[in-house]
Amino acid sequence: MSLAGNAHAAPVAVQATGDSAYAAVDPFIGTGGEGHTFPGAVVPFGMIQLSPDTQIKSRKEGYDWAAGYRYEDTTITGFSHTHFSGTGHSDLGDVLVMPIAGEVRLERGEAGKPGSGYMSRFSHDDEVAQPGYYAVTLQDYGIRAELTASARVGVHRYRFPQGKPAHVLVDLRTSMYDYPGKVQWSRLRLREDGTVTGFRETRGWAPGRQLYFAMRFSHAPQGHQFHDTEQDVAYKGFPPPGEKDPRQRAQIEGRQLVGAFDFADADFAGGQRELLVKVAISPVSEDSAIANLDAEMPDWDFDRVRADAKAQWSQALAAVDVDAPADDRRRFYTALYHTFMGPSLFMDSDGRYRGPDNAVHQAKGYTNYSTFSLWDTYRALHPLLTLVQPAQRNNDFINSLIASRQQSPYGVLPVWSFHGLETWCMIGYHAVPVIADAYMKGIRGYDADAALEAMVASASYGPYDGIAQYMQLGYVPIDEEGEAASKTLEYAFDDWTIARMAQAMGRDEVAAAFEKRAGNWKHAFDPGTGFMRARLRDGAFREPFDPDASGYGSDYTEGNAWQYSWYVPQDVAGLAAAHGGEDKLIARLDQVFDAKVDPAVFEHMEDITGLIGWYAHGNEPSHHVAYLYAYAGQPWRTQERLGQIMASQYAARPDGLAGNDDLGQMSAWYVFTALGFYPVTPASNQYVIGRPFLPRATLNLPNGKHFTVVAEGLDDAHPYIGKAMLNGKPLTRAYLRHEEIMAGGELHFSMQAQPDRQWASDGGERPYSMSR
Amino acid sequence: MSLAGNAHAAPVAVQATGDSAYAAVDPFIGTGGEGHTFPGAVVPFGMIQLSPDTQIKSRKEGYDWAAGYRYEDTTITGFSHTHFSGTGHSDLGDVLVMPIAGEVRLERGEAGKPGSGYMSRFSHDDEVAQPGYYAVTLQDYGIRAELTASARVGVHRYRFPQGKPAHVLVDLRTSMYDYPGKVQWSRLRLREDGTVTGFRETRGWAPGRQLYFAMRFSHAPQGHQFHDTEQDVAYKGFPPPGEKDPRQRAQIEGRQLVGAFDFADADFAGGQRELLVKVAISPVSEDSAIANLDAEMPDWDFDRVRADAKAQWSQALAAVDVDAPADDRRRFYTALYHTFMGPSLFMDSDGRYRGPDNAVHQAKGYTNYSTFSLWDTYRALHPLLTLVQPAQRNNDFINSLIASRQQSPYGVLPVWSFHGLETWCMIGYHAVPVIADAYMKGIRGYDADAALEAMVASASYGPYDGIAQYMQLGYVPIDEEGEAASKTLEYAFDDWTIARMAQAMGRDEVAAAFEKRAGNWKHAFDPGTGFMRARLRDGAFREPFDPDASGYGSDYTEGNAWQYSWYVPQDVAGLAAAHGGEDKLIARLDQVFDAKVDPAVFEHMEDITGLIGWYAHGNEPSHHVAYLYAYAGQPWRTQERLGQIMASQYAARPDGLAGNDDLGQMSAWYVFTALGFYPVTPASNQYVIGRPFLPRATLNLPNGKHFTVVAEGLDDAHPYIGKAMLNGKPLTRAYLRHEEIMAGGELHFSMQAQPDRQWASDGGERPYSMSR
Repeated sequence: MSLAGNAHAAPVAVQATGDSAYAAVDPFIGTGGEGHTFPGAVVPFGMIQLSPDTQIKSRKEGYDWAAGYRYEDTTITGFSHTHFSGTGHSDLGDVLVMPIAGEVRLERGEAGKPGSGYMSRFSHDDEVAQPGYYAVTLQDYGIRAELTASARVGVHRYRFPQGKPAHVLVDLRTSMYDYPGKVQWSRLRLREDGTVTGFRETRGWAPGRQLYFAMRFSHAPQGHQFHDTEQDVAYKGFPPPGEKDPRQRAQIEGRQLVGAFDFADADFAGGQRELLVKVAISPVSEDSAIANLDAEMPDWDFDRVRADAKAQWSQALAAVDVDAPADDRRRFYTALYHTFMGPSLFMDSDGRYRGPDNAVHQAKGYTNYSTFSLWDTYRALHPLLTLVQPAQRNNDFINSLIASRQQSPYGVLPVWSFHGLETWCMIGYHAVPVIADAYMKGIRGYDADAALEAMVASASYGPYDGIAQYMQLGYVPIDEEGEAASKTLEYAFDDWTIARMAQAMGRDEVAAAFEKRAGNWKHAFDPGTGFMRARLRDGAFREPFDPDASGYGSDYTEGNAWQYSWYVPQDVAGLAAAHGGEDKLIARLDQVFDAKVDPAVFEHMEDITGLIGWYAHGNEPSHHVAYLYAYAGQPWRTQERLGQIMASQYAARPDGLAGNDDLGQMSAWYVFTALGFYPVTPASNQYVIGRPFLPRATLNLPNGKHFTVVAEGLDDAHPYIGKAMLNGKPLTRAYLRHEEIMAGGELHFSMQAQPDRQWASDGGERPYSMSR
Repeated sequence: MSLAGNAHAAPVAVQATGDSAYAAVDPFIGTGGEGHTFPGAVVPFGMIQLSPDTQIKSRKEGYDWAAGYRYEDTTITGFSHTHFSGTGHSDLGDVLVMPIAGEVRLERGEAGKPGSGYMSRFSHDDEVAQPGYYAVTLQDYGIRAELTASARVGVHRYRFPQGKPAHVLVDLRTSMYDYPGKVQWSRLRLREDGTVTGFRETRGWAPGRQLYFAMRFSHAPQGHQFHDTEQDVAYKGFPPPGEKDPRQRAQIEGRQLVGAFDFADADFAGGQRELLVKVAISPVSEDSAIANLDAEMPDWDFDRVRADAKAQWSQALAAVDVDAPADDRRRFYTALYHTFMGPSLFMDSDGRYRGPDNAVHQAKGYTNYSTFSLWDTYRALHPLLTLVQPAQRNNDFINSLIASRQQSPYGVLPVWSFHGLETWCMIGYHAVPVIADAYMKGIRGYDADAALEAMVASASYGPYDGIAQYMQLGYVPIDEEGEAASKTLEYAFDDWTIARMAQAMGRDEVAAAFEKRAGNWKHAFDPGTGFMRARLRDGAFREPFDPDASGYGSDYTEGNAWQYSWYVPQDVAGLAAAHGGEDKLIARLDQVFDAKVDPAVFEHMEDITGLIGWYAHGNEPSHHVAYLYAYAGQPWRTQERLGQIMASQYAARPDGLAGNDDLGQMSAWYVFTALGFYPVTPASNQYVIGRPFLPRATLNLPNGKHFTVVAEGLDDAHPYIGKAMLNGKPLTRAYLRHEEIMAGGELHFSMQAQPDRQWASDGGERPYSMSR
């Protein structure tokens, strides 16, 4: 089996679009500020994310270095093979490789103290980052380093300076967030044929994660040394051969391992000081890593691998053909690029992978993926991928989710999983809306009964985050479970998506049960304050109540009452009614956006960023809020708010992302919003129309059809929708149906300077709500 | 595949012998003193060793509790599933299970403080130990506990008292030698069908050892609780479901895990307070452990499992039919029992196992074994097993060794390995003589070319223990490698066995090279002092020299010059010549046995025990020494010394073994010596005749023939051999040929009061020596 979906030949026209799109991507966007993206080499949804890791001062603090690289740093510690794109938590950074010219140093050293360790200074002037390619000069060594990747293999090309011994360091001690005991066990082995293999098991964000690798050099190393730098070893056992001489060790095991391989002048044929290194990873075994290396990278052709990666990216990015000013294209295609970073392939070339039980499984009839940042990505990323990626890819995601549930010790779908393992990060059972959304859109290449069973099981697993109480009381009681208001709200939405899918499958009993649960948001609504709040088991709301409060022990998850009180995507009409009518809801939304908020109030909450009033675009609970005006008959207010957000939250600069990209959710929001519509309610098959931000954009759909959005007259002075025509007929509602997009055609907006307060306003057809 | 060799139906006559032999075994012999054996339930060469672990004071010290159980202890902490039989180093003790009546306690507690933890007092009066069966009453709880085992499954039967809640504890924190950080990671999981699975990875004698298990109860537990008792957790991650309530946890991961399962009255059908627990282990995965459980133990019949174990033991013990006084039979059959404790089966029911690369492999066409205590067992245990076990078993051992070499990161045969992993314990490459001995005896069910290649590779791996220097200099230089004299001597012997096998294979070049190396013992011999000593690289012997000295930094391995200077089994004639003749050698041997030695000189050397002068029967370097008189033409002196040793070193008491049984080597010495001959030089196909200690013994050979040794007139007053007749013809040499034994027949000794100084003496045919 191979990474499905990349092998299709693209037609020439698309290729041209793709190349142009490829050229527009700037992988540095998001690498500064709060974006937490990385600039390194990866293919779409690839298992390898080969990228430089940097250091400025201490790396103790994990949050800011969640992607390994920070644009403001001036030193590179090496190139590691796994990275998250845009997370708030830190892990990965496996198999750090660093080329060295001169004396071997085994410790990373301190930034700002050249020569204190193996790290090297670098300059952005020497950097190149393109999709699937990264290059930099390591100034302390005068080494030019280039990186590229295939799905399971990272390829390095190093050009060493003349006159100094060349070395390559492999450090198994480091990761994105280091602390004593994180590496539970590790191994480095030099095999007789010159292949280096190893593994490490870490206790990080996911517990007991095993990662294996296999590495080959284009020239045989003349020597090597293996070190265990840990001093505190309780029982070391009998020394293996070569223990006294690190150059004689064929293998080393321990918790703090580093190896160095020597390549003197004589090793380089014809005076070329060029060395290629290729590294495959595997979740299964060292032998499987070797098999991945053999299967994907039998030869030594860096430029071909780079060209292959470029071709994959060009094809993927050709899903949307954008006609817009250069800066907008740069933002758009970089966002689109970031939406193809996850879920990530997680399967060896023979179809084996590791599941949430930490056991090895065989994928049968599908390609297995992991890294599901579901609390983020169910909102817009997965809906976007149903439009811009082949159905096969989306089916593979769903088959991966179902398999994970079947292998789960808890019998539930993933919550936040990576490398097959569950982290239990964030809240909800948001694999549920991902599956339901795909199912409702006709993506059905999986066992729908097994899927529904998994969804119901996940929504019914009592020990998880207050679900037992939620099923009993209709809400999560805050005296028994933290962040109860957020949980009640998100469970209710997820439940609604189960009802939708069950209904479509003719499973009426399931549909009825979960339709009922979908109304549980009402138990969180406090008519007295107009906020969503957490109740106690006795039914009373918890007092005292401070709608500004957030953080540990609060009613909410990464937010406060101002941010969470609008989370009823399945029933915005019901929410408006609860507030006493659409106007009242709009007034409340205005309170959110127009509040004067001291950002210091969120200093303790690193995830809450990108503030516009209380609206926090840097975190997901706000992502649908600007679109709610359209439900209340005032789509022009949505248009206005989107203008505010797009102007302030996404810049084509390294620090241009207002918050963590969260495996593409921030970027997916941008892509949808730039196109002019957004999936506020996954599984509704509706996209709420905001306003277009691109003069012309064509979705080259996976079914071969094309859906074009034209924004006639669009410029900064003409940001409002005047007339909307779908395939030449007036469109008077503020949403699109999924079928309308998939049928292909043209959505034509006439933009104007002033809001059209009539279009899709009072009395018009509103987006779906349960209460209608 | 299954455990080969146990399934053959035994003829009725053998069965009778076997049952009588079974009844003669006392598994308590060796559980006190220095024997380090365990009394629990195991089948011959079984993967499971299910046995009680005891505690007297602190368990910090590993040596004395290497087998988990000490006869002098008064408390039992539980029943764990893996044990070494007779080692000096400590590990295993996996998956400790303890039944409890009453309140659940999670900590082991302190011996002598009843109620301080879950441990319980016990009395030897309540104990029963038979091959494959163990029973005891846990006094603090009033629980009767019985244990039995199949190859891969341990079965517990607990009878709980009325009126108290019944519980079963599973403790993954404990092992034979505990220290912080030993458990690197572990997992406990309760599956929906009531199966409990888990694993742990330990950093013990072997590094990074993974052991998986699956456990089922005959009655469904009514409840459970899973705890992680570790306080110091650097990054705990997000809490899995049920984290707040140990009774709701479906799974727990961590480094200090303990689980308790509740069985209230209602769980026991018909008022029976009887609970069965069956536990399978696997080196591969939890699923494989379940598969082992399903394959071997589909039902719930403790008595059948016990009967099967008895049948296996009866068949194995029927290999020798002994006619002797009860006490001698007890010693003999217990010794024979202990020779079937290792190597141990190490392979799942599907043929998968873990190799020295810690990767999973598939055994093809053979049954895989591990736990090779080769420094000990190449001497007499493996030679014994070629006589008393089917060729298939010996072939499986050799195939396991070859496979291990092929999977070794170092490309060498096992040194001291268990559970597939290499410990590098002790010295030499003694898998080599095991293979050569079997090959020379016609046991050839493996790829002999691969075997010889593995042997040569192991003898040529430079980084290991001074082999590079040994190959360069002809000896191991003490200034570059510790214990150099012992290493030079043992390498030279191992080399000789390679030469033997290569010669038999027609590989003349290999034979010549290793025949030359076999003479390297001469480089260790110091004519000045008459001792084997270590040289420096410059060729000089290291000074100062103290023949009494042993321990860290010495020339020797677990011994001193008095013990190691006779280790030239391949060339005793050469050794005698070096000393200036046979008489001189004999005088030196007498110095060894007759010295007045203060045992305090070995207080720092826990392995050197069983002293007769300098002769230390408790450790292996002495094991051949008493037989050397026979090479020097004075077999009656061997007879005399053996009488001394047998009378003082083996008693039919718990503390009856003078030293660690070392996976059966101590016991194999006893079996051979009691029969009347001993394999001083494995691969020579000769057994040096000592003297018989049994009136009549018949070897029921694996080829179906029978070889009987009769000692006519034997009693304490008639310990010397007078006349020896082999198949009715006078035998005038002090050795037997392997072929003579395997042909069947009768060796008839006429015993007498005084030594016969003529028999096999000067001028007679001597056992093999290179120099003859």
